[in-house]
Parts: sequence; structure tokens; C-alpha cells
Amino acid sequence: MLPETEPSLLPFFNPQGVAVIGVSTNPAKLGYGIAYNLVKCGYSGGIHFVNPKGGVLLERPIYPAIDQVPDPVDLAVLLIPAQLIPPILEACGRRGIRAAIIVSGGFREAGATGAALEDECLQIARRFGLRLMGPNCIGLMDTHLPLDTTFLPPPSPPAGEIAFISHSGAICAAIVDWSRGQGFGFSRLISLGNQVDVTETDVLVPVAADPHSRVVTLYLEGIANGRSFVSVAGQVTRQKPVLALKVGRTGGGQKAASSHTGALAGTEEAYEAAFRRAGIQRAATASEMFDWAKTLAWSPLPKGPHVAILTNAGGPGVMAADAVEEQGLQLAALQQETHDALCGLLSDAAGLDNPVDMLAAATPEQYADSLSLVLADRSVDAVLLILPPPPMFTAAGVARQIIPLIQTAEKPVVVALMGYSLVQEALAYFRAMHVPAFAFPETAASALAALYRRTAYLARTPGEEANIESAAAVNPPTALVPEPTGWFSQAILHELLSAYGLQLPKSGLACSAMQATDLARRFGFPLALKIDSAAIAHKSDVGGVRLDLKSSEEVAAAYRELLQAVHKARPEAQITGLQVQQMIPSGQDVIAGVTRDPQFGPLIMFGSGGVEVEGLRDVAFALAPLTVYDGRYILQNTWAGRKLDGYRNIAPVDKEAVLTTLAQLGRIARDYPQITEIEINPLRVTAEGAFALDVRARQSHSEAKVK
Amino acid sequence: MLPETEPSLLPFFNPQGVAVIGVSTNPAKLGYGIAYNLVKCGYSGGIHFVNPKGGVLLERPIYPAIDQVPDPVDLAVLLIPAQLIPPILEACGRRGIRAAIIVSGGFREAGATGAALEDECLQIARRFGLRLMGPNCIGLMDTHLPLDTTFLPPPSPPAGEIAFISHSGAICAAIVDWSRGQGFGFSRLISLGNQVDVTETDVLVPVAADPHSRVVTLYLEGIANGRSFVSVAGQVTRQKPVLALKVGRTGGGQKAASSHTGALAGTEEAYEAAFRRAGIQRAATASEMFDWAKTLAWSPLPKGPHVAILTNAGGPGVMAADAVEEQGLQLAALQQETHDALCGLLSDAAGLDNPVDMLAAATPEQYADSLSLVLADRSVDAVLLILPPPPMFTAAGVARQIIPLIQTAEKPVVVALMGYSLVQEALAYFRAMHVPAFAFPETAASALAALYRRTAYLARTPGEEANIESAAAVNPPTALVPEPTGWFSQAILHELLSAYGLQLPKSGLACSAMQATDLARRFGFPLALKIDSAAIAHKSDVGGVRLDLKSSEEVAAAYRELLQAVHKARPEAQITGLQVQQMIPSGQDVIAGVTRDPQFGPLIMFGSGGVEVEGLRDVAFALAPLTVYDGRYILQNTWAGRKLDGYRNIAPVDKEAVLTTLAQLGRIARDYPQITEIEINPLRVTAEGAFALDVRARQSHSEAKVK
Repeated sequence: MLPETEPSLLPFFNPQGVAVIGVSTNPAKLGYGIAYNLVKCGYSGGIHFVNPKGGVLLERPIYPAIDQVPDPVDLAVLLIPAQLIPPILEACGRRGIRAAIIVSGGFREAGATGAALEDECLQIARRFGLRLMGPNCIGLMDTHLPLDTTFLPPPSPPAGEIAFISHSGAICAAIVDWSRGQGFGFSRLISLGNQVDVTETDVLVPVAADPHSRVVTLYLEGIANGRSFVSVAGQVTRQKPVLALKVGRTGGGQKAASSHTGALAGTEEAYEAAFRRAGIQRAATASEMFDWAKTLAWSPLPKGPHVAILTNAGGPGVMAADAVEEQGLQLAALQQETHDALCGLLSDAAGLDNPVDMLAAATPEQYADSLSLVLADRSVDAVLLILPPPPMFTAAGVARQIIPLIQTAEKPVVVALMGYSLVQEALAYFRAMHVPAFAFPETAASALAALYRRTAYLARTPGEEANIESAAAVNPPTALVPEPTGWFSQAILHELLSAYGLQLPKSGLACSAMQATDLARRFGFPLALKIDSAAIAHKSDVGGVRLDLKSSEEVAAAYRELLQAVHKARPEAQITGLQVQQMIPSGQDVIAGVTRDPQFGPLIMFGSGGVEVEGLRDVAFALAPLTVYDGRYILQNTWAGRKLDGYRNIAPVDKEAVLTTLAQLGRIARDYPQITEIEINPLRVTAEGAFALDVRARQSHSEAKVK
Repeated sequence: MLPETEPSLLPFFNPQGVAVIGVSTNPAKLGYGIAYNLVKCGYSGGIHFVNPKGGVLLERPIYPAIDQVPDPVDLAVLLIPAQLIPPILEACGRRGIRAAIIVSGGFREAGATGAALEDECLQIARRFGLRLMGPNCIGLMDTHLPLDTTFLPPPSPPAGEIAFISHSGAICAAIVDWSRGQGFGFSRLISLGNQVDVTETDVLVPVAADPHSRVVTLYLEGIANGRSFVSVAGQVTRQKPVLALKVGRTGGGQKAASSHTGALAGTEEAYEAAFRRAGIQRAATASEMFDWAKTLAWSPLPKGPHVAILTNAGGPGVMAADAVEEQGLQLAALQQETHDALCGLLSDAAGLDNPVDMLAAATPEQYADSLSLVLADRSVDAVLLILPPPPMFTAAGVARQIIPLIQTAEKPVVVALMGYSLVQEALAYFRAMHVPAFAFPETAASALAALYRRTAYLARTPGEEANIESAAAVNPPTALVPEPTGWFSQAILHELLSAYGLQLPKSGLACSAMQATDLARRFGFPLALKIDSAAIAHKSDVGGVRLDLKSSEEVAAAYRELLQAVHKARPEAQITGLQVQQMIPSGQDVIAGVTRDPQFGPLIMFGSGGVEVEGLRDVAFALAPLTVYDGRYILQNTWAGRKLDGYRNIAPVDKEAVLTTLAQLGRIARDYPQITEIEINPLRVTAEGAFALDVRARQSHSEAKVK
């Protein structure tokens, strides 16, 4: 079930009356455009125009002020200079208006003065219980109600099933115009602008609740409150597909990060993890997003990933087969009876395996009969039908024959309608009948993959969506005080990890070779020695690690050599001592860490560890707390994770221990908001469990305060 | 310079007269279509129709037989049933015709009988010195000559600068029709069909030699003679850009490979390496290929990768910035004077850094003036201009203002013209004036990247294109006889690699623990023991490797343990003995190998070695012999290669020794055609050189015969 729509937002979506403040009688002005669209769209509520000059516009009076506007009116659309907005907002509030769209620019996007003005607007709105959309936006459109508060030049887009929520007004305008050539329509369209009040998260539920919206598409430049967005979107995606185009992927200064996890966990990794958690499909381009949206709106979902390709030529069939496999789908193995029936239907030279090649002379009837046969094949979950201009018939003739089959099929059929002038009539038929058609097999296969991802998402069980059970801490450290550098001492971290049930090798701090050999005798051999210094982040870089020491003599010698090496490499570093550590039998060494994303909070990282982690980039991320699904995902999507099951002479190890470790790291991040990042590298995984051989964690004062 | 066109192919491209054999007076038949297109295209040579029925077609006589056709005639186009082709070909040969296009299907693609018919055609053609295009093709088109031997429904595509060579007739037909909606034209268009005689390699030179062809595009399903294609294409690409869409990328049974190199070196890797060597840009989809082609045909090349983005809205600017960086280009850092001049030109709130945001109210004049400024900026190599429907002006108005600047600029400008109905007029202007325009910033950025890759390719020096010098063998083994399994013995391989100057650890075969300790004393410690058995491909999988043995006692004990382990794991395996091997000091372990691709011959592999090579897939490939450029490429495109320069506490090692090893492996493959694959894993690289710690090679009888 969808959550309830916040009642204060209802006037945006079903207003009783709309006042346009700042109308113009000059058709070249945007203030005329808004008035014109509102009247011409067929909106059935009250329509009121306001401008101090008064007069008449589109056969309606222009009121000099908002307080003179008669009932009903609960939504105001403002297109007046920015500095005039605050007093007019006050007047709207006093008039009892409960929602306003500020179209005007000149606010936060224009600098400090504009930002102050924007804050003032928000305070006024709060005072009157008035909700604000914008500023610096182009308003909203509902093609079914209908309602159009934008100044976009006519004609307005055709009514359809796709909702579009956009941070950018220019993208809205461009997409609305572009869609006219694409054959799909919109249900609701919202431009959010600066989002001083109403955000993408706020409008997600009311837009998805609209029965006309079958798919929700998002153009995002960032997300205001990441966790709340993930939570709301996660509920919406159980009901309706949500697709997102998130821009701002590259560029921007790299963070100065002091851990591998921090360096690798960029904003993009967090968005990927968040979209995965919320069940949002992320598109790479706008055209891809709307290709998917159209197909999700118009097609039944496939039961599985097996695609049959039906073609009248070899080349496009090979293209399609490539694309199907590259999209992660599979070519269906047709059943013998389908093969036999096709054999009776088609000419001798036809290709009867998948792709089924009906050859160039295929008639419209052969197209239809072959389609019937592959649709009836129980090994087939979806069909990709290829229709270049047939040399002997018209594409429209084929379209007419196959459309009834596609419309009544319980399996999705997408069409690669290749060409332009010779396929216009067929294209018009397909669009009118809501059959997804694409210019090339690659885009058709991409759309099928979006359908199948939806199937797979809806098939996830509540168990997969649940968090991996992570045990509460037993006797956690009472105070977590970092060193002056911001790093936590090894002693504190050992106490912390142990409290959460994570296994660590026996270890102790030695400040002399004598202390080291004493500890060595207590722990047993082999042993490792590691430098303990808050100033040294990467120990092995400075020669600060010695492994596999097998006797007291070796420990004593290594103690002296190691100190010398570190002194030489980092003469200025304050050294606490040397950690003497029990060595864990060999196993698989991985990295496990948590960092904090400014939008989405704790982000868990897993992958190939060691010193080369940033070079190999064999890592995957998930939001904390870790779900069963995400845990499996990050193991399956890294070589380090796949290898845990064993590979050639590499023995399988305790995979569950890895998942538990990751879940507990997430729990620690939640329990201790002051910890900015923790990293275990390596986490040694053996058949007996996972051991944190080296752990580091830090608190950043500024970030600790924010979270 | 382009190579000379093979004279026997000239009648295809500039025939004095064309005879169509198998014309029809029924406009629904393809035999009518060919006749109609040939007459209507405006071809100025002799046009002759042949059909035993005789009669008149398009006001010309139909001759009953080819020998009655008058001069001039040097090209025949045949559209008659397959089984009638051989005698008619004979008649053509007798008539003195020197080139024929067989449009008819029913040959190799239809089974064994068809294949025999095809072979018969080839024999007849050889006898008469007649060249054959097809069968099972749709012929060729030259829009400038003009000449059109196809049956494609009119109108024929507009004349243009793009040549298209296609293995698939259906793709030709679809692309010709699709191009009508894309605003570009073709110069020459060739459908090759079954390629019984004339192949893609044959037509590459004559097509590129055509002065009207500025770009050559290829649709390929495979390549007939890989090495010859690479050699010819490499000469063509120095003169004109060549783009390829190669299908058949996925699927097909995986090879049963017995080495990592063999398992990883798929057909796709060979094609990638071949296209790189030949300087061919490979597109992922047809629309991408023609987006690139249009831009390469119409635009000057950028001097560098620095792109300025000019926009009137933030959202599309961010999209463009993402795309520019994802395409491997860079955002130009505008110079201070450009910044200052833009500041004087644009409104206060405008964004003056790259992307330059002129804001929604930007006038056509501001577009033009801003474009002038960024074009004049010497930090800018190319401009991506974004033009959504401007709210206050028309896109066509902007187009009119900026087109003269773009046409006279020495830097490329591509336009993201976002929208549909509101930008049709602007689109028509851009197309007419050959300004590359795209619906979204992503495709525009992709086209700019294709331009820049062309710049980078042309900038390669002869030194980069030269082969890495590889020394000839000194005292190579005289006979290279494999074991019955097909694998070569370690002794032979050591002799072989040493002859080519490759370094190997000292080693010897021991058949008893006593022999092993004798060898150990000779070589010094530490030592490794490795099983030597032709039946065991992956030694460590069966416990067949022991490392770091430091005394004779350890060697003796390890000898016994290792044999026991191998007997237990593989009781049936015949064991030659144990290799006793000097251990090389630690360094970076990589994999180096050569395999043979059926199309392109020896293919060199390099990457992260060890047992996990197939899991990590950190490998890259190049054709042998290895060029300086390809050597650098494969090192830069693998983590194993980048790491050779050192990384954190990993010391830099002898990179040149790696390149020499790879080059010598290529040389061995050339010198010994019977070797199917060689693999060194690991190749240990230290500061002192590269050492082949383990080498395997095999001969496959069937393959050895073929090569």
C-alpha cells in the first residue's frame, strides 16, 4: 500500500480554484502563457487572474489584487519579480490560499540576496500553513484532471501514463516537446525548482497515487533528505515502477579521504546503493528512461528472462541476440513443438531456432502466425519482434496483423521497427495501440530488460528485503574518545569490535622488545608486529608491519628493525608502541568498511582488500542496515565475494561470517554517530570465521556534529 | 597514401554499361525495382535489360539473352533463380562482362546444395576473370556518379559524404530508410551478401578512394581474412576515418580452453585488438556509428580534448558535463579574458564558468556572441552547445545566428537540440548547413569524443606504430615435438624461451628425492618444487607446487609430500618427475601469453596473473607483433600494468622487460606456427627484469595443420 498523501499538498493536485498572479495581456510574455494554458487545458475549477493594472484577459477580469479574487481559490501561481514575492505571499496567506507555485527566478540560484529572499518566503509560508512549490520552476501539469499551470508553448503533451518529476524546468520543457515525436504521453508533470519547501520526496506519493500514472520518472540533480527519500520511494516502488535519471555523476573535487573506504565511496556509489535499496531503476540517459517508462506503462511483465527473437533478416537478428545477452536476458530455447510448427509455416531456408528468421519474403500472416507460436511456447517469457521495411509487403500490413495478438498476449512483445519513411504508418499504428516500438534492436532489448528487472524486483521476498540480523553490543565501551588526530586507538577499537561479536586476533601493545617477547610467549606463534601510531594511516607503506614471526628471537629482532624502518620513513611520527598480534591461519583477505555519505548516511563497503584495493576497485556498496538482498548483491558483484565460495585451489570460506561482519559494522555506525568511518583491512576469512586483522576508525569533529 | 584499387573491381564502381538480368515488367517484383532504380537514379552509362520473355520496360527493349545486349556493358546484375545462375554467368563471361552482382538468394545461406552452387559460380567466375559481388545481397549505390543497382523502394537516399559497407542487405535497407529521418546522406553503399568472391577488405580501398566519401562505415558479421583486413584498413584509416559496427558479440558456445589465455581470449577480444591496430573506431550501435560518421564528415577535428559547454539552462549543462567526462573528454578551464567578456555580455545571474549558463532569457545574439568568445578561447578545443526550445525566442532564430560562426570556425561545434516540434525549423537549418545536431547532450558528447579519438589517432608517431623490437632467436630448439597430450615438455620450453632471450629460473628435473637434493645444492636456496606431468595443466590445483624450501632436508620432505598429494588428487596422471626450481626474489607477478585467433592469428595477452586471473579479468590483448602503442595500451589498461610503475609500498619494477617478454612471445608464435598457445604464469617482474617462473605451451594438431 502507498502511504497517505500529506493533506497540505492536495491543493496542488486537485485545486478548487487557481489564481495566476502576474498575468500579462502581451502574448509574448510568460504571464500570458500561464493564463492561456490554464484556460485552454480545460481546467474545470475557478480560474482567476491578478495584475495591479487590472483589465481583461481571455474574456476574464484581471483583479488588481489577490484579496479581491472570489472563491473558489486554493492554489496561487506567482510570476512576479522576486523581491515582490514576500508581500504577495502574505496576501495569499491572508486570503486563505494554502498552496503556491513560485515560477519566478532570482532566488537561491542567483546568489546570497536571492537566498535570503527565499528563506523569507519559507517563513511566511510556514506562518500561514501555506505549501510552496519552487521558486524558479515551471509549475505542474495534469493531463487527465486536467490542469496546466506552466507557460510551456502549446500544444500541451498528450494525456498518458507516465508521470515526470523534474528538478529542472528546462529539462521539463525539452522533454515535453521531445515527447511529441516519441508517441507517449504524460499523466502528471512537476517541475520542482529550488525546492524551498516541497521536495521530490514530498510529491512522490501523491504522483504515484494518481490512478492515471502507471510509471513515475524522475530527473534528479541531488536528493534533499536521502534516507527519507529511500524509505518513501521503497514503498512507492512496491506499487508502481519508479525510474530515475540522476545527473551530476562526474567531476567535482575528489574528497580528501584518508581510508580506502572513504576514497572509494563517492556520491555516485551512494546513489547507486540508495536506488537499489529503494527499487528504483536508474537510467543512463533521458531517452533510455522514457523508453523504459513507455514499455513499463504499456506491457505486461515477463515471468522470466527468456526472450524469443522473431525476424525477417539475419543481420538484425544477430544484433538483437547480442543486445538480449548484453542486457542480462537470455535467448529462449524453443520447444520442439514450436520448432515443428514453425517448420510447417515457413519456407525451407528459414531459421527455426531462436532467433527465428522468417526470411525477407515473410508475409504479414507468417509474421502473425509465427508470433502466435512463439508466444504460446512455455519456454518463452517475452518476444522481441524485428520489422525492417519488408521488401515485398508494407510494415503497416504486418503491424495490422500482429497488433491484436500483442494486445491480448500475457507476455510482453516489443518491436524493433527499423527505418523511417517506409515505417511511418506502422509506427503510428503501434503507438496508437500502445505497442512499444523502437528504431533498433538494442533499444528494444534494453526496454525488455527494464521489464524483467521489474519482475525480479517484485519477486523479492520479505525475507530478502529484511535486514541481516545483527546482534546488539555486549558491554560496549562507555566512552569513545579519539586521539587528537581524530583516529581511535587500537585498544578502543578492539574493545568496540569485540563487544559487537567480531573476532580479532589476540594482541597487545608492546613498548619494548622485552614486552613484545613476553606477549609473544603468551599468545603463541606465529605472530605479527605492527606499528601503533595515530599519525600513520597506512602501516605497510612505511615498513610498519612484520609477519610470520616464529620465535621470540625473531620477534625481538623484528621489533628493532621495524622501529628503525618507521623512524626513517616518518621521523616526525609519534609512536605509541608496537602491536604484537596472533597470526590467523591463511584464508581469503577482504576489505570491509563503513563510511558516511552526506545524503544517505552509513554506507557499507566490501571487496578485494589489501594494499591494492583502490587500484583494483573490486568493491561494492550497500546502505546500512544491510538487507539480505543487498548482502547477497555485494558478494555476487565482487570477485572477492564470488571467491568466498571457493575457486580452483582456493578453499571455500565462511561467507556468513562476512555478512555478519558487514551487518555489525553498519550497526556500529548507527550506534556511534560520532564514528565517521571504520575499515577492516584485511578481514581474514577462513572456514572457521572472519577475523579483523587490522582495523582503523576515525571521528571527524565537523561531521560528528552534523550527524 | 591509399593503396591502388585492384583494377578488376573498377567495373563495379564506374561501369560503362549495366545489364540487369531477370527484369520484370510487374512493378510489384524486385526485378522491376532494380530496373526502375537504375533508370531513375540518372546513371549515364548504358542500361540494358534481359529476360527470355523479351518485351519493353521503361521505354527500353528487353533482350532475350545477355549475348544480344549491345555495348557498352561491363557490369551485370543478376536476379534469377539460383540454379539458373551458373549458365548465365558463363554467358556473361563469354559476352566479355567482367563484374557481376548476384542479388538472388538460395546459395550458401540455404544449405549444402546452395553452397555447392555458390562454389560453381566462383569457379566459372575465375575462369572468365569475372569478379562477383554477393550472392544474396542487394547490390550497390553511388549517389554521386550516380548508380543504383538495388531494388530498394524509392526515394533513394540523399547524396552525402558517408560510405556504408554492409554484410547484411536488410541492415542496408533499414539504414537507408532510417537515414531519411536523420538528415545525412550516403556517398557509396555496398551490400556484400555471402562474399563468395568480393569481401569487405576488397571494397575498402575503392570506397575510401572515392573523393565524395569522407567517412567509411562498416556493418560486419565477421571478417574473412583478418590479417589482410587489418593491414588494408590500417592504411585506409590514415587517410579517412573508418567506423565499424561488429555484431555477433555474445553467445555461441564457449571454447573448451585449457589455458587462462585461451579461456579469456574470445573472438571479441581479438576484434577489439584488431580494430585498435587498424585505427578503426568501433561503435556499439548503428545509431552511434552514424552519429559519429555525420560528425566526422562535417566537422573540423579538435586539437585537444577540452570542451566548452554553452547552455541556457543548468540541468542540460550538468547532463552535458557528465557526458563529456564519461566520454574521456575534459571540461575546458576558460581563460580569464573569456570569463570577463562573458561577464560583460550576459546577465548578472549567468554562470560564467564552464558550463557557461546564459540563462533562459538568452537572446540569439547572446548565443552567437558567447559562442564567438568560447571559440576564441585558446583553452577550448571544441564546443558543445545546448539549445532547448528557448522560452522567449525560437530555436530557429538562435540557429540562424550561430550557423555562420560554426561554419567558419576551425574548432568543432556540436549542438544538443533538445525537443521536437519546437525545434524542427532549427533542425532543418542545422542539417542543411551540416552542423551536427543531436536530441540530447549525451549523444552530442559521444560524437565529440569520436572526433577527438580521430585527432589522437592521427597524432600517433611512426615510432608508436612501429613494432617493439624483438630479437631473433639464438640457437632455438631444432625440433619442437610435443608430448602425446599436445603439451610441450618443460625442458623444450626452457630451451625455447632461453633461445629468445627470456629469463627463467635455474631448474632441473628430479625423479627421486636424492636427485632433487643434488640439484638443490647446485642451484642454492630458496627453491621451489613443481610437479611435471603432461596430464596436469594447473599444478597448484592438485597440490603440485611447494615454495620457499630453504634446506636440503626441506626439499627432500617436500618431494615426498608433493608426490603423495598429486597421487591422491590425480591417481591416473603419468608423472615425469618434479621440477626443482630456483626461487626468484619477490616482485610483481603477472601473466603473459599468446593464443591464436582463427581470424587474426597470434593474440598477445597481459594482465594480473596467478590462479585468479579468470576471476579478476584484469587482462588486455593486442595483435602480434606488438607495437609500441599497443604495448603501452595494454599496460595502461590493466591494473597489473599500471602497478608496474609502483603503487604505495609496492616498488616499481622493470616495465620494459615485460614489454620485451610480450614482444618475444609474439615472435615465438610467428616463428613456430605449430604452437597454439603459450602462457607464462606467473611472469615475475622485479627491478632486475622479468622471469618466467612457470610456462606452458601446447600444440593442437588440427590447428597446427590449419595455420
